[in-house]
Amino acid sequence: MTVAGTNGYSHHRKPLYEVTRDLSAVAMGFIPADLIIKNGKLVNVNTAQIQQNIDIVVKSGFIALVGNADHVMQDEKTRVIEAGGRFLVPGFIDGHMHIESSMVDLRSFAAGVLPCGTTTICPDNHEITNVLGLKAVELFHKAAQDLPIKVLLAMPVCVPSIPGFEDAGATITPADVTKAYEECWAQLQGEQMNFPGIIFGDPNTHAITSASIKAGVVLTGHYPSLEYNKGLNAFIASGMNACHEGTTAEGTLKRAQLGMYAQQRYGSAWLDMPNTIKAVTENPEIDTRFFTLVTDDVSPATIANEGHLVRVVREAIIQGVDPVTAIQMVTINTAQLLEKTRYIGTISPGRAADILIISDLENVIIDEVFSDGVSVAKNGKMTVDFAPFTYPDWALHSVHLEKLEERDFFIPTSKNEKVRIMRIYPGMVHTTQEIVEMTPENGGLVADPDNDILKIANFYRHTESNGKTGTRGMGFIRGTLLKPGSAYASTVAHDCHNLLVIGTDDAAMVIAANALIESGGGISVVVNGELESVMPLPLAGLMTLETLDTAAKQVKRIEVALKKAGCPYDSIEMTLSLLGLIVLEELHLSNKGLVELKPGQPPQFVDLVVH
Amino acid sequence: MTVAGTNGYSHHRKPLYEVTRDLSAVAMGFIPADLIIKNGKLVNVNTAQIQQNIDIVVKSGFIALVGNADHVMQDEKTRVIEAGGRFLVPGFIDGHMHIESSMVDLRSFAAGVLPCGTTTICPDNHEITNVLGLKAVELFHKAAQDLPIKVLLAMPVCVPSIPGFEDAGATITPADVTKAYEECWAQLQGEQMNFPGIIFGDPNTHAITSASIKAGVVLTGHYPSLEYNKGLNAFIASGMNACHEGTTAEGTLKRAQLGMYAQQRYGSAWLDMPNTIKAVTENPEIDTRFFTLVTDDVSPATIANEGHLVRVVREAIIQGVDPVTAIQMVTINTAQLLEKTRYIGTISPGRAADILIISDLENVIIDEVFSDGVSVAKNGKMTVDFAPFTYPDWALHSVHLEKLEERDFFIPTSKNEKVRIMRIYPGMVHTTQEIVEMTPENGGLVADPDNDILKIANFYRHTESNGKTGTRGMGFIRGTLLKPGSAYASTVAHDCHNLLVIGTDDAAMVIAANALIESGGGISVVVNGELESVMPLPLAGLMTLETLDTAAKQVKRIEVALKKAGCPYDSIEMTLSLLGLIVLEELHLSNKGLVELKPGQPPQFVDLVVH
Repeated sequence: MTVAGTNGYSHHRKPLYEVTRDLSAVAMGFIPADLIIKNGKLVNVNTAQIQQNIDIVVKSGFIALVGNADHVMQDEKTRVIEAGGRFLVPGFIDGHMHIESSMVDLRSFAAGVLPCGTTTICPDNHEITNVLGLKAVELFHKAAQDLPIKVLLAMPVCVPSIPGFEDAGATITPADVTKAYEECWAQLQGEQMNFPGIIFGDPNTHAITSASIKAGVVLTGHYPSLEYNKGLNAFIASGMNACHEGTTAEGTLKRAQLGMYAQQRYGSAWLDMPNTIKAVTENPEIDTRFFTLVTDDVSPATIANEGHLVRVVREAIIQGVDPVTAIQMVTINTAQLLEKTRYIGTISPGRAADILIISDLENVIIDEVFSDGVSVAKNGKMTVDFAPFTYPDWALHSVHLEKLEERDFFIPTSKNEKVRIMRIYPGMVHTTQEIVEMTPENGGLVADPDNDILKIANFYRHTESNGKTGTRGMGFIRGTLLKPGSAYASTVAHDCHNLLVIGTDDAAMVIAANALIESGGGISVVVNGELESVMPLPLAGLMTLETLDTAAKQVKRIEVALKKAGCPYDSIEMTLSLLGLIVLEELHLSNKGLVELKPGQPPQFVDLVVH
Repeated sequence: MTVAGTNGYSHHRKPLYEVTRDLSAVAMGFIPADLIIKNGKLVNVNTAQIQQNIDIVVKSGFIALVGNADHVMQDEKTRVIEAGGRFLVPGFIDGHMHIESSMVDLRSFAAGVLPCGTTTICPDNHEITNVLGLKAVELFHKAAQDLPIKVLLAMPVCVPSIPGFEDAGATITPADVTKAYEECWAQLQGEQMNFPGIIFGDPNTHAITSASIKAGVVLTGHYPSLEYNKGLNAFIASGMNACHEGTTAEGTLKRAQLGMYAQQRYGSAWLDMPNTIKAVTENPEIDTRFFTLVTDDVSPATIANEGHLVRVVREAIIQGVDPVTAIQMVTINTAQLLEKTRYIGTISPGRAADILIISDLENVIIDEVFSDGVSVAKNGKMTVDFAPFTYPDWALHSVHLEKLEERDFFIPTSKNEKVRIMRIYPGMVHTTQEIVEMTPENGGLVADPDNDILKIANFYRHTESNGKTGTRGMGFIRGTLLKPGSAYASTVAHDCHNLLVIGTDDAAMVIAANALIESGGGISVVVNGELESVMPLPLAGLMTLETLDTAAKQVKRIEVALKKAGCPYDSIEMTLSLLGLIVLEELHLSNKGLVELKPGQPPQFVDLVVH
């Protein structure tokens, strides 16, 4: 691979409306083609057929002909590829995902997933927008230019998740949403997570929905409830066109029946699809056009080791879905959801030449990937490179905190107190609340690792400073089994991504926290009172600029350090990253304090000490 | 029925983005519904299922809930309809049609087709635009307001059909096309008929295509050729998304395979669908999402006697298509072509409540029609009325010709001449050329009804007057069998719709022509030297403002008159209306003279007399 060398990718494709005469002339045999892929088996997602002996002809990044290319002109610049009976499949489209979950920036992400056949993504950059606000959407838009992957940005609409109970780096308003579409930064609405706000008629939530509908874009939703009559209807009637939160076959079929695209999820941690896909496999007669497959959240390790959307397609086939149907679920169906079938999702004339050559359809073995008619990856490796994007300083320095000291973690008290403890369950997203009597030391409450009780702190770390700078929440958690002298800190702390620190003593917590304040964000682990591992995440404190492989290795080192610190569970950092997510039950910690959320009740602040 | 009375239709629907809170509240059971249709069998076009015991709940013209409405609030204004197990079907969408073929204006058309279940139409108003230019598009847009039928106008792009060989009332330029979209007069591109212009790379034809693609609209095409590799690919690669000119099963399947919506036609005269539908019935395993049904051109009599799109659906079922699949072809599939599934084509929450109650699915018996949640027709009759649209003078006075005299039909010569004759074939669209030696009378060539040779004239009749006013073409035709003393005149003369006159003698021709110059356009028949019948078509010389039933009766009277004049063929006026259509083979007459078109050759002017 070379950067900006002979294999450097250069994007200079004209829009379709400037090249129709050329495409027509190539199809007619009047001028030479750029690329001819000869003699493949076309996986025709339009009619769900496999067609033998098909040639594909490309000019200026678009498909000019699908059929017989014997009459097509060639010259010395025409590239001719012999498919030799291999399968020709449209590039895959991921209709809902968060790049931040993969902990790399857009360019590293593209380089990681293109070899797996993903040629279009719809990133909902909700996390970085919590840190940097609307300008993060503009930044992602700019970073997406000139890449061999198509990026349709989904506008984040729930920043912060519950206004008043936490402070993000920004607030997204209906006017922001409108602006993002008007400026063409975003092409669809990201997931509307505040489904109670929708179904119970919150005016601001509906104002955001209205802004998206008025702009004419497609809206994606987030409806995790298992109530499929009044609530689901209310949610869809409010304009939501797609949802990836289906967890049951019944709920997934219901979505499709109600004209909502079912975005069946198969990420790293949330593996709903083998369950939801029964809606299809157990109803073989139904029309499956409203069923799609998405990743939502995948770790760098998952992509590096198992691939991206292709892993989901493989699993769907394992679950009994016909390969052509499974491929439709990541191509034409998703393109129809996005109202982009004139552009992507099908190998047809006039569409972008995003083509996969697949040697084994059942196992989805991808030999070569073409993006806009350019071969960009072969046998799982990128064959072109692109220059890194230069991020502005404000995106790379997003941890606005002075170095911390032990006194910043001090919880003063002079007597025994009954204290609320967040009980975690490794691998689960919720906590429960425990009440424990604690005895102060030196005038303050301290962690008690012998009883698996650690201190936890959440520091506001963003630039918006109208009274927020200096705010912090303090509490205790149980369930990590960390040994004395350990601490963990992270700026990946959903959804506000403030600085979250847990530890067995204040000194260790200071070391872990300051390592991140110094590095501009990331994840750090302290073992035996010493800094054991840091994964710097300079981009908004959420993403590295390294490659996906490097990110996977760095996460691995964090996980090794956490085990060395005494935590026996796999990927415990994923559970810890949710301790600030106050939309979850039952007790969580924002920068404003402890927030209790009980089933069917509104969230409320609670004191650390039970009076 | 009352006009503007208690049953007068009043359109006051708000856009979806203004009512999402209300829809949500109705679905949740918090506020009363406007309409509840209880206990139907839902023809679910999303999943191709029939679901039992389904209720539909409507608020503000939109569907709020599909499922169980037991919890839904009612008040004294809530209308509750018991479906009693009847079928609930989305309103039908006609994706390609010309209202002018039905010879009535938009309002009469709506009143005629709504009882047949057509709730959305995409009129390509090509004919009136040939007469009145871009302002006809604006006029149709205005005439479409406040109707209980949804009108998505298709911008005509081939005016005139072959520049230089004929004169229409206007010329449509790429700038006009752009303006029509910018002003929101048109929502898609009408049929690009100049397919040779596309596949052979004519710059102006591609400039019009580019204007449509750039505007982001869907483009419809017109590809009558039977060449399905290079030409069809070139046409689709140039951005055409749909085509109604498929006449074979092979060509129809090819279109769908190439990602072009097959708009299978079943009009009054062109009955392709029973042939093309074999692409579906003989390939039961294919995905049929790219197959739709359209009417293109239907006479008033066809609608009055057999219905509109419903007639096409019935025929598709007779041809062996599953009823649910056939209904998908006029609902969700067409909506997907139009990229409007968020609005129409499916009974799903958040969509317009365009709903048919059908008592017999196999025979498609429509009991009641709802448009935007309002019952507009029952048992084949409109139950609401709407005030007529007031057309401007310029649209109602489009025949700009002084009264004609016999000398206007004079073809001077002093000797015998070999003359080119247009041989017609009743029921066919083409002519052939015959050479006949003719002997002059009184210094001019005259008709010879004894040998079935009639004179034909084509007079420029539009306002644009830069050298065109006064132009006329003269010739002879054979094949009508009209008796001496007969004449026929019409301002319905594709595509330029100049004044076409044929007759057995100049005196009869003068009478027929002047009747139309007086009436402002239409069709007239002279028998035995006297005016026998006139059908006035005041709107652009193409359409009546009467009802569809009246129009059907008037056409019938014209046909009776033509038989009385000696022509034994049914509906001969349809064949005669094509005698000015110079894009057809082999000899036709424009206002500029005789135009010869031979297979594979460009059109050329030829003299009446062979030298």
